[in-house]
Amino acid sequence: MVSVDEVIPLIESYRPLNPLGEVEVSLKEAIGRVLSRNIFSPSNYPPYTRATVDGYAVISEDLAGVYEDRPKTLKLVGKVATGETKLLRLERGQCVEVSTGAVVPYPADAVVLIEHTHARNGEVEFYRSVARGENIDIAGSDIAEGEVVAWKGTIVTPLLVSVLAAVGIDKVWVYRPVRLGIIPTGNELKTPGEKLEYGQIYDSNSTMIYAYAKSIGAEPKIYPRVHDVVEEIEEALHKALNENDIVATIGGTSAGLEDKTYRVLSRLEPGIILHGVREKPGRPLAVAVHGDKIVFALPGFPLSCLLTVNLYLLPVILKLQGTPKSEVPTIKARIETPIRGEPGIRVFVPAILKHNGEMKAYPLTGHSGRVSAMSLLDGYIIVPEDTEHLPEGTEVDVLLNPFQKNYELNIIGSHDPLLQSIVANLPGYDKVRMVNVGSLSGLQALKSGVADMAGTHLLDPATGEYNLPIIRQLDIKQALVLIGYKREQGFIYRKNTELVSSFKDIVDKHLRFVNRNPGSGTRVLIDHMLEEESRQLGISPEEMKKRLTGYTFEVKTHEAVAYLISRGIVDVGIGVKYIAERYGLEFKPITSERYDIVIRREAYTNKLVSQIIEKIRNLDKATLPAGYSLDTKTGTIIEL
Amino acid sequence: MVSVDEVIPLIESYRPLNPLGEVEVSLKEAIGRVLSRNIFSPSNYPPYTRATVDGYAVISEDLAGVYEDRPKTLKLVGKVATGETKLLRLERGQCVEVSTGAVVPYPADAVVLIEHTHARNGEVEFYRSVARGENIDIAGSDIAEGEVVAWKGTIVTPLLVSVLAAVGIDKVWVYRPVRLGIIPTGNELKTPGEKLEYGQIYDSNSTMIYAYAKSIGAEPKIYPRVHDVVEEIEEALHKALNENDIVATIGGTSAGLEDKTYRVLSRLEPGIILHGVREKPGRPLAVAVHGDKIVFALPGFPLSCLLTVNLYLLPVILKLQGTPKSEVPTIKARIETPIRGEPGIRVFVPAILKHNGEMKAYPLTGHSGRVSAMSLLDGYIIVPEDTEHLPEGTEVDVLLNPFQKNYELNIIGSHDPLLQSIVANLPGYDKVRMVNVGSLSGLQALKSGVADMAGTHLLDPATGEYNLPIIRQLDIKQALVLIGYKREQGFIYRKNTELVSSFKDIVDKHLRFVNRNPGSGTRVLIDHMLEEESRQLGISPEEMKKRLTGYTFEVKTHEAVAYLISRGIVDVGIGVKYIAERYGLEFKPITSERYDIVIRREAYTNKLVSQIIEKIRNLDKATLPAGYSLDTKTGTIIEL
Repeated sequence: MVSVDEVIPLIESYRPLNPLGEVEVSLKEAIGRVLSRNIFSPSNYPPYTRATVDGYAVISEDLAGVYEDRPKTLKLVGKVATGETKLLRLERGQCVEVSTGAVVPYPADAVVLIEHTHARNGEVEFYRSVARGENIDIAGSDIAEGEVVAWKGTIVTPLLVSVLAAVGIDKVWVYRPVRLGIIPTGNELKTPGEKLEYGQIYDSNSTMIYAYAKSIGAEPKIYPRVHDVVEEIEEALHKALNENDIVATIGGTSAGLEDKTYRVLSRLEPGIILHGVREKPGRPLAVAVHGDKIVFALPGFPLSCLLTVNLYLLPVILKLQGTPKSEVPTIKARIETPIRGEPGIRVFVPAILKHNGEMKAYPLTGHSGRVSAMSLLDGYIIVPEDTEHLPEGTEVDVLLNPFQKNYELNIIGSHDPLLQSIVANLPGYDKVRMVNVGSLSGLQALKSGVADMAGTHLLDPATGEYNLPIIRQLDIKQALVLIGYKREQGFIYRKNTELVSSFKDIVDKHLRFVNRNPGSGTRVLIDHMLEEESRQLGISPEEMKKRLTGYTFEVKTHEAVAYLISRGIVDVGIGVKYIAERYGLEFKPITSERYDIVIRREAYTNKLVSQIIEKIRNLDKATLPAGYSLDTKTGTIIEL
Repeated sequence: MVSVDEVIPLIESYRPLNPLGEVEVSLKEAIGRVLSRNIFSPSNYPPYTRATVDGYAVISEDLAGVYEDRPKTLKLVGKVATGETKLLRLERGQCVEVSTGAVVPYPADAVVLIEHTHARNGEVEFYRSVARGENIDIAGSDIAEGEVVAWKGTIVTPLLVSVLAAVGIDKVWVYRPVRLGIIPTGNELKTPGEKLEYGQIYDSNSTMIYAYAKSIGAEPKIYPRVHDVVEEIEEALHKALNENDIVATIGGTSAGLEDKTYRVLSRLEPGIILHGVREKPGRPLAVAVHGDKIVFALPGFPLSCLLTVNLYLLPVILKLQGTPKSEVPTIKARIETPIRGEPGIRVFVPAILKHNGEMKAYPLTGHSGRVSAMSLLDGYIIVPEDTEHLPEGTEVDVLLNPFQKNYELNIIGSHDPLLQSIVANLPGYDKVRMVNVGSLSGLQALKSGVADMAGTHLLDPATGEYNLPIIRQLDIKQALVLIGYKREQGFIYRKNTELVSSFKDIVDKHLRFVNRNPGSGTRVLIDHMLEEESRQLGISPEEMKKRLTGYTFEVKTHEAVAYLISRGIVDVGIGVKYIAERYGLEFKPITSERYDIVIRREAYTNKLVSQIIEKIRNLDKATLPAGYSLDTKTGTIIEL
């Protein structure tokens, strides 16, 4: 096991990460690539002394002391149009007519604007004097022949292209791109677009790595996925090694596979140079060297894979392509909640950044298997190796996500299809980040400051009232509540199942139940109903829960409930009517719950927030999704 | 004439800038393009409840209260490998062996790590309890089917690609790219790679626009250049209009051409909608509309062209491609020198940004014909329309160059080939920005804080000493002087010219002289020599200067002197031996001048500066360029 900072130096000690070679390409093809040679200007710029206005080229001393009422006449000895290459000369007392961009004849040192002159009979009368150098642009005054116009290692940008073209360059030498072979491994993988069985998962890492490699100018290729069989891994690896400079295998997630990949890599020469990094996520990274080729065996969990790609694979590619700056950028931010470290391990915590007075970083919850975090996270909070605990208020380094987007509004809370469709139809919808974490986590995110709005449907069993009692218990300051709409909750089951209208039915019919996660509004409802029914049955709620198969089997969304039921993994659950209908399932109503939205006071004046409020106030009963309803309170604002 | 802020709204009033259409592409092809539809997840993620470690799936309540010394045995009823799709079940008192990534059988709600168990004879002994949800990843817990995973208008990044692939998406709808036709116009233009006559200039704008358009995903095409002829312009324009959504003609610089382009554009329907913007540079911009196509007639001077491309052409393309955020970003910075505004005109001053304690902006000198500024500038200082004068210390808005590079060291001053080659061979060479402005401007840049090092060769006529007296007169504080090397200066002329060894020779032989710019070290030498010679001849220095043809014809570099002589535009000048030899010219030595380097004290500890000092101290006499020499003082540091 090595530390994060040792990985690249260790690779370099086996195989120096110098550019792989250079190719000469046209200027157009060079865009985004890295110059492999210093470029010395082959010419002077401008290449000739030129007029910057239409007028008369003169020797400025000839017009010294000339004014409107004391004009002077010079002899007109010729005319130069733009693009003309014949060389005129002039002498003291003479002038030459020139167009903008035309050659200024030697030794004229200024051009007088045509509007300050009057020409007649081969002579020109001047009404103004002119300063030396006025309205001319002298040959070589901008770029001298032989001057370095671009250093090697420079990325060819549109601006550099302009400079190179101006001095006449049409071809440049650039470092050749790295060829990267990507091999997804694992029996459980399917390719996006294929049909998935329960127990299989789409390979998302290959396309992510492909996209990153493309974005830095490399030449990636995804190889067919490989099963958990030594011979298959070995054959694919050697084919990819023959065709590429670097090969990235992406671990399936099974331990057996890791062992097999390891066995194949250890047969390379010199073989595995590191296995395991003291970091989290991303610990299982292995790197092997084979001659001058490098193999990265990347972990399979998306966030682990992403982190090792950012920390090691991309910097190595950039170095091999000659890009001098290959470090991932970091910024400083303050944390609002304490974060635990792990002794000896550098922990990277996926986080959202938000400027609340100063830059603050909020950890995204969830483990490295989360893929939704990919498009939500702004970066990773770095918890250094020597840190057991980062207290609230600590200033931390945040490793930036290279494709960070600026969001204006964070809506974090319970997922609701109607709220989502309202946001989707706003003009500024793309500035909204919606994170679905459930009602309670949403309210906590609002309290900490990261969420601007939080959708919630939490029943207070004591009062039978929705949302407000819980919001008040949480002591959320500086917030308002927008009263939303009602959603019908009920039992959901497959159409061929016998009617379910109570938990007793589920127990009696030996059906498999699927529960929701603690903190969700639906879970509060479920527990409340179980207590009521157990009272009626004269047993303890604990006994009732024990009898209910699957009470401890929790999923996090309405959709997951419906999905597991439709797949036949479970038989019955509780959720909203809208989702039941979408999955073609039976729905037996239980109650109507309130879905309200809490708004951070500071965000209340935000234009997007105003638009959302307006949309909710103008909801049309006729076009609401199944199971939704409005009442007279919908759209009112309550001060906390 | 309209204001800067009116241009795009005016275009929109004739032709709404909505996306042009959409196309369905593979995820790989979509990278960098803009989604034209909201993407709802077609599946739940993870698609099944999976184990995140190797171990045994259990119902957590079965292991309540289990410890090392109070183990419990469960019946082993099966095994699920990763990728297996057969559906196992278990009951209370049972467990199932699972691999990382394998399906967790219903209703197991946790997985116990294999190292906390012991298996034998179809049973497993457990030595630890487990929390509900531990080591499992529940179906749909991350992304719910139907959840928006990406809004329309989002740019497809590698991270988004990962999320989309994870939910099984392999194709997406994106806005179709804008087709842009680029037509360079002007008789003086040549294409880079072609041979240039004196009076001709390379077309650099077309490739710059091409590169910018490419970088934002458009499909640009450069058409053959067009001469200053109405019929040619008209034919090219109509061909390009047929094949593209937008056409950009790039003005030659001559006034006649502008008129002709204008005449052609006015025949379109509805025709020219604006001609002239109250901005500088970029004033001559014209825009025409033809049906639903747009024509931009861009100014020809590189910096004017660049600015109008950034302010108008690129935002219009981005809007037509559906990118929601199309504004050019600005930042705040403080100016160290006053800047003049122009009433009614928004002035954009090319500038270098530097963080000296706070962000500061330093204007780059020179007019809009400068092309070298392109790769040096960090942005433009914006001087608003209502401003006559921005005093020193004002906080200004700086329009950022979209391809800004971070430099660590600014070397601004007199161009010296030896210093340049020293820098070119440093490991961190690409972090150095070298700007060649002459000795005096370099010292002023150092005094103001923008330059970290300034190379200088300025003779003090009073003492006959180089550099130090002038540096002291300028009262540069907080700086050190690194004593450099000597360079031979002399008369330069073509090999077939009669020997020149004085200014009297030049006058007597009626040769055409080329002078250097005021502020350059060479100009100080020239004026000093002219005074000496005129004294010997018994005439006034003014008379001597009058007799010298070309005294008022100034160029800014040694290379330009040599170039004009080699081209036969002039006959003689003064410059360093090294350049004379490179151009194959005769060199008659006059004197050896000192080339020293002034270093800002704060930059003295910079690693690159230390390396440059070290290289100068270790220069080898044997490998110096022609005309260079060292002495005992070379490499010493003098405190000011």
